[in-house]
Amino acid sequence: MQPFITLLNEELLNTIRKLHMPETLKQSMMYSLEAGGKRIRPLLIFATLEGFGMDGKTGLPVALSVEMIHTYSLIHDDLPSMDDDDLRRGKPTNHKVFGEAMAILAGDGLLTYSFQLLSEIPSDVVSCEKKLALIRELAKASGPEGMVGGQVADLEGENRTVDLSQLQTIHGNKTGKLLTFCVKAGAILAGADRETTEKLEQFAHHIGLAFQIRDDILDVEGIPEKTGKNTGSDKIKKKSTYPSLLTLDGAKEKLNEHVFAAKKLLAELPLNTDKLETITDLIGSRDH
Amino acid sequence: MQPFITLLNEELLNTIRKLHMPETLKQSMMYSLEAGGKRIRPLLIFATLEGFGMDGKTGLPVALSVEMIHTYSLIHDDLPSMDDDDLRRGKPTNHKVFGEAMAILAGDGLLTYSFQLLSEIPSDVVSCEKKLALIRELAKASGPEGMVGGQVADLEGENRTVDLSQLQTIHGNKTGKLLTFCVKAGAILAGADRETTEKLEQFAHHIGLAFQIRDDILDVEGIPEKTGKNTGSDKIKKKSTYPSLLTLDGAKEKLNEHVFAAKKLLAELPLNTDKLETITDLIGSRDH
Repeated sequence: MQPFITLLNEELLNTIRKLHMPETLKQSMMYSLEAGGKRIRPLLIFATLEGFGMDGKTGLPVALSVEMIHTYSLIHDDLPSMDDDDLRRGKPTNHKVFGEAMAILAGDGLLTYSFQLLSEIPSDVVSCEKKLALIRELAKASGPEGMVGGQVADLEGENRTVDLSQLQTIHGNKTGKLLTFCVKAGAILAGADRETTEKLEQFAHHIGLAFQIRDDILDVEGIPEKTGKNTGSDKIKKKSTYPSLLTLDGAKEKLNEHVFAAKKLLAELPLNTDKLETITDLIGSRDH
Repeated sequence: MQPFITLLNEELLNTIRKLHMPETLKQSMMYSLEAGGKRIRPLLIFATLEGFGMDGKTGLPVALSVEMIHTYSLIHDDLPSMDDDDLRRGKPTNHKVFGEAMAILAGDGLLTYSFQLLSEIPSDVVSCEKKLALIRELAKASGPEGMVGGQVADLEGENRTVDLSQLQTIHGNKTGKLLTFCVKAGAILAGADRETTEKLEQFAHHIGLAFQIRDDILDVEGIPEKTGKNTGSDKIKKKSTYPSLLTLDGAKEKLNEHVFAAKKLLAELPLNTDKLETITDLIGSRDH
């Protein structure tokens, strides 16, 4: 899947580079897009489409759009008034380089442009109805009932204990719904039936939880040189996490359960799920 | 046009109230939506539709969407790292009441939800193609090539002199494009021909400039009890404004020129432009 990631990385920058806007804003937007990351969300779109026997590259505009939304959320989450992080993927965070005002506006710009990008897909490539469905689902996944609401609940969960079910809801909104959107976007583009779409969404639910548990584990025992951020930040913020609620071993067990459940669902799907399986393994075992 | 404004104010709150999200986030979003304001943008949509002989109320979802975008931009612009304003429309600004993190997230939530709202207009009311055109134009007007870019240029213009043409470009992006979107949205919904649409856009260009010049004049000689904000803030920030570049009398003359040009364009349009004329007068003579 590396050629797709290379193409995605190039297009993320090309797309922003050719827009007319103040140079500092452009640099700020590109800085965070360029900071890389695992590109899990674009990969999920690509792998889902290939599962349906389609060319994964047809998902490129949606992948660009999702990665812009994800990047904006990282920029805003890192701000001093939020998680107050200085490092992201081993590089200074956006506001450390460009200042708070520019970081906020770069986030706003990426968020807004992600919808423009979807609306501008030529109608002979993706039908009008499908484009609207993509826009609607992306907005739902990333808005107040999704990611934004999850970030609020996450911030409110600091310095107090939340139980396992609350923790799942918080992360389901903060990260799960956008991951689910990615497989759903693949299903929308492929014109999948309802049963397949629902099974894919269940699969995404499990890898979303696995993703978050792995994140919590890495905050305890990750290697900063690999994760690109300092460990122990959850403890400092007195945040409830899977390891704090279940012990480290308990969290690892829970992670394996979700990876297992995700793979079981893949086996039931009438698709070529090789690439989705690779991503599932990646999520469960990643060291960054 | 008062019944439409009453309906809009109710629906702004009803729409957010029925969503599922953390209570603090909801309160923060509703607080700023409720703070009122002149609702110039919704009025422009309404008046344009009525000009085409349509029921202005069919523009309600677009009006809600634009007002959410406008409100998000005010919340973010008021933040300490941006304009650092404590008062907006006579009330404490969002971050003064809910804190910076919540203010940023309330803005993000309103911005994202505005696109969801447009995507959810039933297709038997507005065709798929028209909805996509509305989403595309709204994103363009409010994104990095529009409002967000304008806010960056505006911040960068503090403490240094910009000339009249640069000032027009800054405000054209920061406020003009979203005002233009409103009349364009009316034209899209009405299925207007290219010539009429272009003339409406030229009209919007002039009222956008008139709006900004009036804003600058009010910052010099406005009555804080009426404007709901302190006067003299541009001078404190050493911002170039129409009065600072043209003198107060020169700015007033410029304002009249744009109001005159806007009305001349209205007279050339094959529409019933009574309501658009009322709004033009309102923009030129408003005291808040």
